[in-house]
Order: sequence, then C-alpha cells, then structure tokens
Amino acid sequence: MASFARSAARLQPAVRLATRNNVTRRTMATQTPPRAASAATAQQVSSHSSAEESLFPGEPTGPSIRTQIPGPKALEAIGKLDKTFETRSLNMMCNYQDSFGNYIADVDGNVLLDVYAQIASIPVGYSNPNLMQAAMSPQMISAIINRPAMGNFPQHDWAEILETGMLRVAPKGLNQVLTATAGSDANELAYKAAFMWKAQQRRGSYNADFSAEDIESSMNNQTPGSPNMSILSFKTGFHGRLFGSLSTTRSKPIHKLDIPAFDWPQASFPALKYPLEDHVQENAKEEQRCLEEFEHVLTTFHSPPAAIIVEPIQSEGGDNHASPAFFQGLRAITKKHDVLMIVDEVQTGVGATGKFWAHDHWNLQDPPDMVTFSKKAQAAGYYFGNPELRPNKPYRQFNTWLGDPARALLFRAIIDEIERLNLVENTASTGAYLYSGLESLAQKYPKEIQNLRGKGQGTFIAWDSPRRDEVLKKAKGEGINIGGSGAMAVRLRPMLIFQKRHADILLEGLERVMKT
Amino acid sequence: MASFARSAARLQPAVRLATRNNVTRRTMATQTPPRAASAATAQQVSSHSSAEESLFPGEPTGPSIRTQIPGPKALEAIGKLDKTFETRSLNMMCNYQDSFGNYIADVDGNVLLDVYAQIASIPVGYSNPNLMQAAMSPQMISAIINRPAMGNFPQHDWAEILETGMLRVAPKGLNQVLTATAGSDANELAYKAAFMWKAQQRRGSYNADFSAEDIESSMNNQTPGSPNMSILSFKTGFHGRLFGSLSTTRSKPIHKLDIPAFDWPQASFPALKYPLEDHVQENAKEEQRCLEEFEHVLTTFHSPPAAIIVEPIQSEGGDNHASPAFFQGLRAITKKHDVLMIVDEVQTGVGATGKFWAHDHWNLQDPPDMVTFSKKAQAAGYYFGNPELRPNKPYRQFNTWLGDPARALLFRAIIDEIERLNLVENTASTGAYLYSGLESLAQKYPKEIQNLRGKGQGTFIAWDSPRRDEVLKKAKGEGINIGGSGAMAVRLRPMLIFQKRHADILLEGLERVMKT
Repeated sequence: MASFARSAARLQPAVRLATRNNVTRRTMATQTPPRAASAATAQQVSSHSSAEESLFPGEPTGPSIRTQIPGPKALEAIGKLDKTFETRSLNMMCNYQDSFGNYIADVDGNVLLDVYAQIASIPVGYSNPNLMQAAMSPQMISAIINRPAMGNFPQHDWAEILETGMLRVAPKGLNQVLTATAGSDANELAYKAAFMWKAQQRRGSYNADFSAEDIESSMNNQTPGSPNMSILSFKTGFHGRLFGSLSTTRSKPIHKLDIPAFDWPQASFPALKYPLEDHVQENAKEEQRCLEEFEHVLTTFHSPPAAIIVEPIQSEGGDNHASPAFFQGLRAITKKHDVLMIVDEVQTGVGATGKFWAHDHWNLQDPPDMVTFSKKAQAAGYYFGNPELRPNKPYRQFNTWLGDPARALLFRAIIDEIERLNLVENTASTGAYLYSGLESLAQKYPKEIQNLRGKGQGTFIAWDSPRRDEVLKKAKGEGINIGGSGAMAVRLRPMLIFQKRHADILLEGLERVMKT
Repeated sequence: MASFARSAARLQPAVRLATRNNVTRRTMATQTPPRAASAATAQQVSSHSSAEESLFPGEPTGPSIRTQIPGPKALEAIGKLDKTFETRSLNMMCNYQDSFGNYIADVDGNVLLDVYAQIASIPVGYSNPNLMQAAMSPQMISAIINRPAMGNFPQHDWAEILETGMLRVAPKGLNQVLTATAGSDANELAYKAAFMWKAQQRRGSYNADFSAEDIESSMNNQTPGSPNMSILSFKTGFHGRLFGSLSTTRSKPIHKLDIPAFDWPQASFPALKYPLEDHVQENAKEEQRCLEEFEHVLTTFHSPPAAIIVEPIQSEGGDNHASPAFFQGLRAITKKHDVLMIVDEVQTGVGATGKFWAHDHWNLQDPPDMVTFSKKAQAAGYYFGNPELRPNKPYRQFNTWLGDPARALLFRAIIDEIERLNLVENTASTGAYLYSGLESLAQKYPKEIQNLRGKGQGTFIAWDSPRRDEVLKKAKGEGINIGGSGAMAVRLRPMLIFQKRHADILLEGLERVMKT
C-alpha cells in the first residue's frame, strides 16, 4: 500500500510542474502569434470579441492553413495506416498533442477551428490542462493499469467517484447509474433492463420466478424465454450500431444494410417547418399527428414494446427537433400504456443544448425512466430511478468490465471544469449569439442556409444546405472543421468552451464559403 | 505543439521518479515482511520454490488474511455503493492501489493470491511498474484527454501504435485489425463484417451494388435488406451479452432470459471424458459426432450462417476443451461450405494457454478468418487477413470511437512486458508444474477434483467440484481468490506472472480447503 501512495506523493511535483508549465504555455501562446499566418488566418484574427475573457487561455488565436487537406504528410500517413486499418472514412489525420482548446491540428501543421469535435465528443477543449492533471493522478494511473471487473471486484472508491462525478449531474429524478463502454452499449443495456422489467411485470411481480419453459426456451433463442417484445424507436433516429441498437436505428441504409435486425416498430418523428414562428399551427398539427401514430403503433404492433427510445434532437438523422409538448405527449402516452421511456442523450447530453441534459428543456412532470449518455461524458451508461429497473437477480445485467473507471474519473474532471467555468451557461449565451449571426447570414444567403434550427438550444445548431458536402470541404480550406448529418444538414457541434470570438471566426469563414 | 512536448519533457523526471520509486518499493517490500501474518500466511510462506527468480519483484511473499471476507470496512463500503450501483454480484471490495503483482487487496487489509484476475483480464500483475510508466507517458495522457473518433480523425501515430503493439502479436495469416471497446463489441463487429461479406457474395461480387429493394427493406428491418442470415455457435459457448453476441451465447439461462434473441443455430460442442488418455477412442468418436452434427446444422438451418464462432476452450460455459483435430475439422467444413470461421479468443488469448493465441495449438493449414480479443489485451477488436473482410464501402463498419487508443497503448506495454519476461513460456512451464501438482491432489482427493483438464494448456486449468461454491468461498479464507465457471467447474485464470512459488501456495491452500 505504502508503495502506490509513495508513487502518488512523488507524482505530486510532476503534477505541479505540468500545471506550472501549462501556465507557461498559456503565457507563451498568448504572447506568440500563431504560426506564419496564411491568408485565412490574417482575415480571421481581426474580428474577435476582444472584451470577452478566454475560457481556454493559450489556445491559438485563429486557424492557420498551410496546405491542402489532406496535405503531403497526411497522405503519406494515410497510405501507411491503410495497410492495416480502415481509412476510407478518414477526414483528417490529426496530431492531438498539437491540438489545444477549440483548435484541432493535423500532421501538416494545419490548425482548424473545430466545431465537429470528434463527432460531438470533446467537451472542454483539446489538451485541457485540468483534464491533463486528472489524467496524471494516481487514481487514474491505477484505473488504467488495474482495470477491475466492476460487477465482481469494484474498487474501494467507486461509490465516491460516482457521487462526486456522474451522479452529481444525474438527471432530475434519476439517482442510480449503470456504466457501459460506449453509447450503443449503454442503449443496449438500457433495453435489457427494460425487457427484464417488462417480463417480470408479465409474470406478475418483480420477484416472480422464471418458469421451466422460460428457462428451456431461452437457451434455444425461442419464446417465451426469448420473448416476443420490442423497443419502439423513431424514423430517422440513431441509437448505435450493435445488433439491438441498430434494430432501433433508422438513420441511413448504409448503417443497416446486410445486418440482420429485429422486427421492431418505428413511428414518425415530427417534420417541423422553419422558421418555427411562421408555422406554429402547422407544426402543432404535425406533432399531434405523430403522437397519434405513435400511440397506434405502440398499442398495436405485433411484438409489444417494453420501452421506447428517443433522442431529444435527432442528431445523426439530420438534426430534427420537436417541441417540449411533443415529448410531454410521449411521456404521457408511455405512462398510460405502462411502457418505459428511454431518452438517448448520447449526443445531446452534457451541456451542448444550453442545459446539462437536453430533456431539461421539456419540464416533464415524470422523469424519463432511463437516460443514456456517452460522447462528451467520455464515460457511458444509463441513469435510472425506479429500483425495479435493477433486475431482480444478480448476473442478469452483467459483463466483465461494466464500464471503465478511468473514463468515469475523466467525466468527473469534465464536470468540475464545466462547473468551474459555467460552461453550460456559456454554451447557452454563445449559442444565442451564434444563432443570431446565422440568422443574418441566412437572410443574406437564403439558398445556402435553409431551415436554420436550434434556437434556444445552445450551440446545437444546424441548417440544410443544397451543396452540403462542398460546403464542408470548402470550410476546411477556410480553417474550419465542420460535420454533416442526415441527407443535407450542416451540423454544428462545438465544444462547451466555444465563445463569441470563435463564433465570429466561424461566421466569417462560412460567409467566405457561401460567397464562392 | 511546443506546449504538449514541453509538458512531456517536464513529465520525464516524474516518470523517472516513479520508476526509481518502484525500485525503492521493491526493495522495501522484499525487505519488509507482509503485514502481521495470520495463520494462513505463516503456513503459506514456507514452501516457495526459492531458487526461482521473481517476475514481479516486490510483490507480497504470500497472502495475508485479517478479517472475514467481506470484512467490516467492505460491508460499509458495499452498503454505500449499493445505493447507486449494482452490488449483488460483488465478490470483493478491492483496493487496487494496495494490490501488487499476483496479489489482490481488499479494503479490510486482506491480501489474496489472485488466480481469477478480474475474470481473466489482468495479464502482468497489479500495479505493474512498466505499465505505470506507460500510463504516465505523454502519449497516454493525450489518448486519455483527447479521445479521437478513430474512423474520421485518427491520430498521427495510430499506424505506429498498431504496428509496434497489437499487430506485432497478430495471429499467423491475419495482418489487419479493427479495434473495439470490449469483447462482446469485438464479436459483434466481426459478425457484421461476416454478414456484409456474405451479402456481397450473394450479390455476385465484392463491389456489387445494393438493390433498391435491399435499401428500402433494410430501413424497415425486413428481408432482403436485413437479411435472413445467422451466426452459428456452440452449445455452452459464451460470446458476450449484447443482442447479437447474446444470440450466440449458450452458457446459462440467467444470461439469456427475457432478452429477445435472433433465431440462430447452435451445434453441440464435444463433451470429452477425462483423463483424456483413458478415453482416446470414445473422445475421438464424440468429436466426430459433433463435427457431423455441425455440418448438418450448418447446411440445413433455415437461416443460413455467414460465419461460425467458437472458443478454443469454452470458458464461461465450464472450461470445455476439444482437440486440435476437432478444430481442424471445423476449419475444413467451413472452407468447404464457404462460411467464415471466427475464433473468439477473448478469454483464451494473450498467453494464458502457453501459446500467445490458444488456436496456435491447432496447427491449422488455413488460419481462421477472424480472431477476436479483449480481456488480458485490455484493448479489444478483431484481426483478419482477407482484404474482402473490409466492407466494400466506407461507413459500413463504423462508430464514433472505434476502440480506444489509450487501451491500445496499454496493450503495447503489456506485449513489451510479455516479451521482456518471456511470459508465454513462463505460463507454459508453470502450467505444467501446476497441472502435475493438481494431478497429485486429485489422486489424494478424487471426489474434490474431478475431470481435471487443461494439460499442456498453460495455466488454463479447471476441474469439476461437487461443492464448487463452498470451495471458492473457503479458498478466500485461505487467502486465495478463485473463480468458477459453468455448473460446477473451478477455473484457474492466474496472470502470466504466476510462477511455481504461487502454484505452491495455491496447491497448499486448496489442500487445506479439501481437507475440511
């Protein structure tokens, strides 16, 4: 025991050194201009909201484009990697040790403002010094090298890590958590909890025994032990790409083709018209239509749903929004028919919509039954409140690792950073600023920015573009890394440290793209 | 860029400090006797093979039992954790910073020889100083805090991490890898690769287009787009607990009950009789019977298999072995019918059987099509060789993280440690020594040790015990942490640094349990 503690004690100076060094870096970086500025850089540095204090001191002051992307070094590295690993979906060959704050660097020395952020997964900036400190802590080092089988042999400080970390930000009404390794895994574990809950309900009570027929048939993948039940999801929704989660994913054929799927039900997600204020009646009617269809499918589908799963904003599927009233309707209908409601906050959670959880915008009377998370949390899992969602026997919800304490420690450091810098509030106000800038751009370039959406949803903003792929590509040349979603949406997924100064750079870059 | 590198440079002294400290710890630990020895400790320290050089200098010299397990502090910690997290499968409440080498510590100060090792997942000892050094490297710190979406934005050194790490130990004939987050995820990604491969084969060529009907039906989870295909697995096999992997898992009803499953085929795994040398003909006949049944199911099942999946030794299902001839038969039959063969090395891989991969024991002419790994690798994924197992289009095999570079870095450090200490050879020779000791015990206590198995399979040894659960519990009192599998098997899954001295402690402890 003494030994690890001593290692820890000896580590302290290192942590201090690194911290001091980060201060040094910050000073250095703010004093030193970014690398030999390209045309793009020079243009972009001009218009920062200079009064605003930086949330990430020392990050670059603007993008810097040196080569085509991919540049010569990237092409060489891609060629090398392609021999052993998939590269056809490769977007940039990055150097993360050169990436700071909102800026991502590639191997050719290009530095881009990153409003895609690893598909919405980087919350508080690349090479964040406080996360670095957490990564060097003795707790983290032990978590990395002594990974426990958490269901059998949890570590002594697991309760504390949960309480001071992910449970501190648990959605209202949900005070328990099960950890997983990624978003699709989190969703599937939630589905399993739902199926076990519903099966016990069918048996008459939480503690009812399995029948001999249940036991025998389950081993042959047959009913009733492998029951005829389902999870209802929404058209154009995305919930992951494992076999259960993919059966609920309805985003694109390329995600689903050739993979066997469960015959599970789907219902329409509202297709709202924009701007919302010009289509109030029409949109309310559309949501009402979807709620009716939903209730019909829920109550008549041949394989009865144990739960529904829904994203607060359908992300991969094209940034499709619905009103709080729609979600309140879903909650009421699921309650009425005793079906669980799982809210998939894998992409929307952890602050990006200007609230910690996107479903906080709904003001639900009854909380969702389960809320899944991953991405910006860097840890994954699901929250729940009802104790009967803990399966009635041990080893029903179990696997070797049950998540990763190292990632739980990182989530805790992320939460600390979010609170320290008021990043949810920052995202709400920066989002409002950015949205307003985009509204102006949309007036100027109405063909380029259609169906602008995400007002009041922090920086979780998107619009449709008839030449989307070209826009994304040209934006790189302007020093901005942006992602798409659905068929023609440009989706913004900046980090929580994205500020007005970055919004200015983004807006100017977008305008240059739209002019050409 | 300069900044992270500077941080790295400043970190170097920390690494040196920690390394020096580990040396200090070793010296200290070998000089200091373990904590106030209990009766168990005193008994156990006596019989070490003292000539043998320790592979983990500084680990405790024997177990030390201070309280009942769980002790008072554990009970308190369990009560606290239970409020928010599942604890009914809890086995010990551990302190990993107090755990060294082959010894696991709990919160009450009990120190046990660990031959279960986080369900076969700790390869080179708790708090291994070389892994600690890897965990403190700038590369690891960046991997922890800057987790990339590997399919879109891989890091510049990913090819190098693969080549100097997991690809260095790639199974013969397989030179490519896809990374995942856990064993069940790895298996499901392999299934997806198999389904896409088979579907293209059905379409006539690797590059054949999807039909409009495929595209449309896939979005409704219907054939032909969601095809009527399957993965064949073996009775009592275990391949994970997500929806696709669980459909191939046939271990125990508690793993499967109430979870919808695909109607996929299963075939019998040989039930060999022990000792093998006394049942040569009978066992050969049993394997022949299973091969015939296998071929029959493979060719007649209503949902045609795209692949089969098989464990070299069925682990969770009770440590069921089969001969190389059986696996050669599987390979020949799958080749004959153009069905892929996936070998699930999640539990058997990375040295435990006395070869790096358990299927190295088979001397196959044609390698398996895919080999999955996790657990002791600490990273997960599947190896493959055939370039047509890379799906024909990008984004078919894709998810946000596609594994975890932090865990890939750790696997590399594990491989370095395995090579430095010749741990595969160590496991082969220690396994032979241990097996021979268990044979003697079995002669002395024939009712306690039945069907001893794993000869020549390193330390991957198991036997049946009519009072298995009691034996596991009593072993804890003797300072030994052991796991079970199947209905009545005691399974040994020590680390690769398990030596004769530990085998002696284990054998003596087991004898004390068997005497009572």
